Amino acid sequence: MTKTLKEIAVFLQGELTGDGSIAIRGVNSIEDAQPGEIAFAGPAVSEKTIEGSGASCVVVGGPLQSKTAKPLIKVDSPSVAFSRLVDLLMPERIPVPKGVHGTAIAGKKAVLGKDVALGQYVVVEDGASIGDNTVLYPFCFVGKNTKIGAGCIIYPNVTIREEVSIGNRVVIHPGSVIGSDGFGYDTQRDGTHVKIPQIGTVLIEDDVEIGACVTIDRARFSKTVIGKGSKIDNLVQIAHNVVIGPYCLAAAQTGISGSTSLGRNVVLGGQVGVADHLKLGDFVMAGAKTGISKSFPANTTLFWYPAKPVDKARDILGCVGLLPKLYERVKVLEAKIKELESK
Amino acid sequence: MTKTLKEIAVFLQGELTGDGSIAIRGVNSIEDAQPGEIAFAGPAVSEKTIEGSGASCVVVGGPLQSKTAKPLIKVDSPSVAFSRLVDLLMPERIPVPKGVHGTAIAGKKAVLGKDVALGQYVVVEDGASIGDNTVLYPFCFVGKNTKIGAGCIIYPNVTIREEVSIGNRVVIHPGSVIGSDGFGYDTQRDGTHVKIPQIGTVLIEDDVEIGACVTIDRARFSKTVIGKGSKIDNLVQIAHNVVIGPYCLAAAQTGISGSTSLGRNVVLGGQVGVADHLKLGDFVMAGAKTGISKSFPANTTLFWYPAKPVDKARDILGCVGLLPKLYERVKVLEAKIKELESK
Amino acid sequence: MTKTLKEIAVFLQGELTGDGSIAIRGVNSIEDAQPGEIAFAGPAVSEKTIEGSGASCVVVGGPLQSKTAKPLIKVDSPSVAFSRLVDLLMPERIPVPKGVHGTAIAGKKAVLGKDVALGQYVVVEDGASIGDNTVLYPFCFVGKNTKIGAGCIIYPNVTIREEVSIGNRVVIHPGSVIGSDGFGYDTQRDGTHVKIPQIGTVLIEDDVEIGACVTIDRARFSKTVIGKGSKIDNLVQIAHNVVIGPYCLAAAQTGISGSTSLGRNVVLGGQVGVADHLKLGDFVMAGAKTGISKSFPANTTLFWYPAKPVDKARDILGCVGLLPKLYERVKVLEAKIKELESK
Repeated sequence: MTKTLKEIAVFLQGELTGDGSIAIRGVNSIEDAQPGEIAFAGPAVSEKTIEGSGASCVVVGGPLQSKTAKPLIKVDSPSVAFSRLVDLLMPERIPVPKGVHGTAIAGKKAVLGKDVALGQYVVVEDGASIGDNTVLYPFCFVGKNTKIGAGCIIYPNVTIREEVSIGNRVVIHPGSVIGSDGFGYDTQRDGTHVKIPQIGTVLIEDDVEIGACVTIDRARFSKTVIGKGSKIDNLVQIAHNVVIGPYCLAAAQTGISGSTSLGRNVVLGGQVGVADHLKLGDFVMAGAKTGISKSFPANTTLFWYPAKPVDKARDILGCVGLLPKLYERVKVLEAKIKELESK
Repeated sequence: MTKTLKEIAVFLQGELTGDGSIAIRGVNSIEDAQPGEIAFAGPAVSEKTIEGSGASCVVVGGPLQSKTAKPLIKVDSPSVAFSRLVDLLMPERIPVPKGVHGTAIAGKKAVLGKDVALGQYVVVEDGASIGDNTVLYPFCFVGKNTKIGAGCIIYPNVTIREEVSIGNRVVIHPGSVIGSDGFGYDTQRDGTHVKIPQIGTVLIEDDVEIGACVTIDRARFSKTVIGKGSKIDNLVQIAHNVVIGPYCLAAAQTGISGSTSLGRNVVLGGQVGVADHLKLGDFVMAGAKTGISKSFPANTTLFWYPAKPVDKARDILGCVGLLPKLYERVKVLEAKIKELESK
Repeated sequence: MTKTLKEIAVFLQGELTGDGSIAIRGVNSIEDAQPGEIAFAGPAVSEKTIEGSGASCVVVGGPLQSKTAKPLIKVDSPSVAFSRLVDLLMPERIPVPKGVHGTAIAGKKAVLGKDVALGQYVVVEDGASIGDNTVLYPFCFVGKNTKIGAGCIIYPNVTIREEVSIGNRVVIHPGSVIGSDGFGYDTQRDGTHVKIPQIGTVLIEDDVEIGACVTIDRARFSKTVIGKGSKIDNLVQIAHNVVIGPYCLAAAQTGISGSTSLGRNVVLGGQVGVADHLKLGDFVMAGAKTGISKSFPANTTLFWYPAKPVDKARDILGCVGLLPKLYERVKVLEAKIKELESK
């Protein structure tokens, strides 16, 4: 889709400097952009880079110090403006299935909303319902009685087991698994393990995005919950009965153990581990690889393994780094004491 | 399915207090249960909670201190009793494929036992055999000559490559991969890597349960083994030639490197890493995120990275936490020595 | 396929001791080999083991100290020779799909090279191209305009999204995901997260091997790159805009965060984490579970969390292990000082 700079400036509610009649057909990074493309410059981008870009226009966040011949659109948040531009100019950039493919199999009692798309070889079991405009790519499995809301995108090879509830505008990347059994066994005196049935389910609220090869287990009873607008990166593990509040972020390969709850806007870095039955308050943050073995109140920032508030962790790690020198200092003290004692 | 309390008490070999004619139609948690449902109370549940539950009956582990009007069934292990009850009252709670779907493709020389169910779009290659009553959900792939025992449940999107052996009553959750090549290369002088063929296989013994998105590599030679009754959580990595003994537990995101062997009833917490060519004896336990880089004898409990016996790890971590104070103490000592020396 | 020892010695350009007419029908480990099979002995294998092996011949790397009646073939690298032998004697050991199965669905504008094999239920979207002799197993999804080179093997349940480029002789194990969206959001003042479109792609160069359940995200702009001949183990996460140089090795469950670049022949152990926007120089190595939070120059070997050069890490860990004793020493010093002061 082609738009003029003037049309784009109006769409972004931005302030245009330069020729409004220039036609823009696409978006690109400031380094790679070609004439006919628009780029954006975050705060770290130099004016020289903007000047030298092949882009026909650059979206910026404030007035430039020096004058440039390059057409600019000034907006409050260049990054957000840019994301909106991608949607405007490249609405079809992700090729989604359209309609219900002849090889898709939906159970007799499955309910498909308006303009639902089921790709090749999708399986939707009896009693499941799929909301308007939701798209399922090939090899997705939707179990019995599972409800998926409107406007969702479910990429290939995703498994959603029975009785799960998924809200609107949820995106699930390929290979993820929703509603597998929680990991629970009663170990007997002879060392064998008797499986504890997992008869709960999973609730994924609106606007959640789930990465690739994520596993979210169903609850023993009741529900495992992913709160509204939370975003889960690839290869994350969410155990049974975990409750994640709204607007949390969990980076790749993080694991949250059973029955732990997170408040709102909790941010977990990559490869973080959170033990079971803990509570992390609102706005808790944890650096990558942090191992959290107890509960922490709202607004705590954590680091290291076992996790400590980040200031304390830094103090301790500073001390740890100087340990070989400390041993030298203690050795010197011991020698001096010996000398003093011998006097 | 509906049962009376009297029937349930007999089934559980428990002792009933209250009206045996009450009809029970389902099970639920003690918090959520409604009339007509039965709940269970572990040792941590208060009598007040039992009293206040909406459940028509509660399964308990011992006599109550105070009297309650609530019907009770006393058993040795409420949790195990409850698991049995779920199976009794909700036998169809997990909707499994029935029969061989018209879109399932089994090779001419594949052997299907009695009452095998192949869901939509299952592929079973030539020479594979599937035991009686085993169920494969959609999009499962069973490679050439692979043997799967009786009574297994293989959830959607599972890949089991060729020549693998799987015992009876094995459960594999969605997205898991059994029998992928081990990670082995000969690095040449020019820095390139020549693949080492992985011509072994995988043996999964009876009663093993494997979580979602687990990867179990085939051996270079001989077999990677998961011992009888062991339970593997989501996103676990088992490398080539690993041998896991019977009744082990490996929590989510744990990784076990090549040729390492575990005894019986080894318990690994989440995100544990075990290096290659090690031996962990029977009943070894490792806390979450432990990094194990050498062998440990039976009955050792491990923690931290690099792993140490837990008592030692706790001592050291206590010392580490006090390091900023230790530096202060050494500084004071240095000042005092200086003063003493100057006298 | 059966070969005589003489034929095998010629094929390996090795030096044969023993009867060249002996027929060899297969390969096996030195412990398990039977008559008619050939085995290999690495440097750690004793002459006694060679002598006692059931193998009809053993491939060795140098002359033996003592004489043995066992036929031997001496070569420069027994392991590489052995891998070549497996390919010679067991060319069909991995059963691959042949031809285009009737249930495979290729878009009208998809281009299939010579002798491409598409297994049951493969989906190849419009505009995709698959090079000569490439094999796709069941339930693989190849997105619009994605290019896959010649001689590749793509195992079951792999998802490759749109516009991705894959070189020649690439192997991808089951369940992996190539080209999922990078994890990028602009967090607003109200705590909500606005998705940053990921309009770049993924480039996988020739001779790369990718394990099972690996996730490789597409770039925000431009490309995520896996360099020629690099090998990626199971459950590894590669974030958007990561650039991995040629001949790198990343062991299982390792994660590399966004925009980080690796030089050539970088080796990362299992469960390593690398933070975002870093540079690791050529031949950097990191031990298992290392957490890398800053850039390191070429040839550095790293360990621990946070990562340090390995010598430093070892010094520090040695000191950490002795901390309880250090506290004792400081306590003794404090007592002695007190005594000295009181004089």
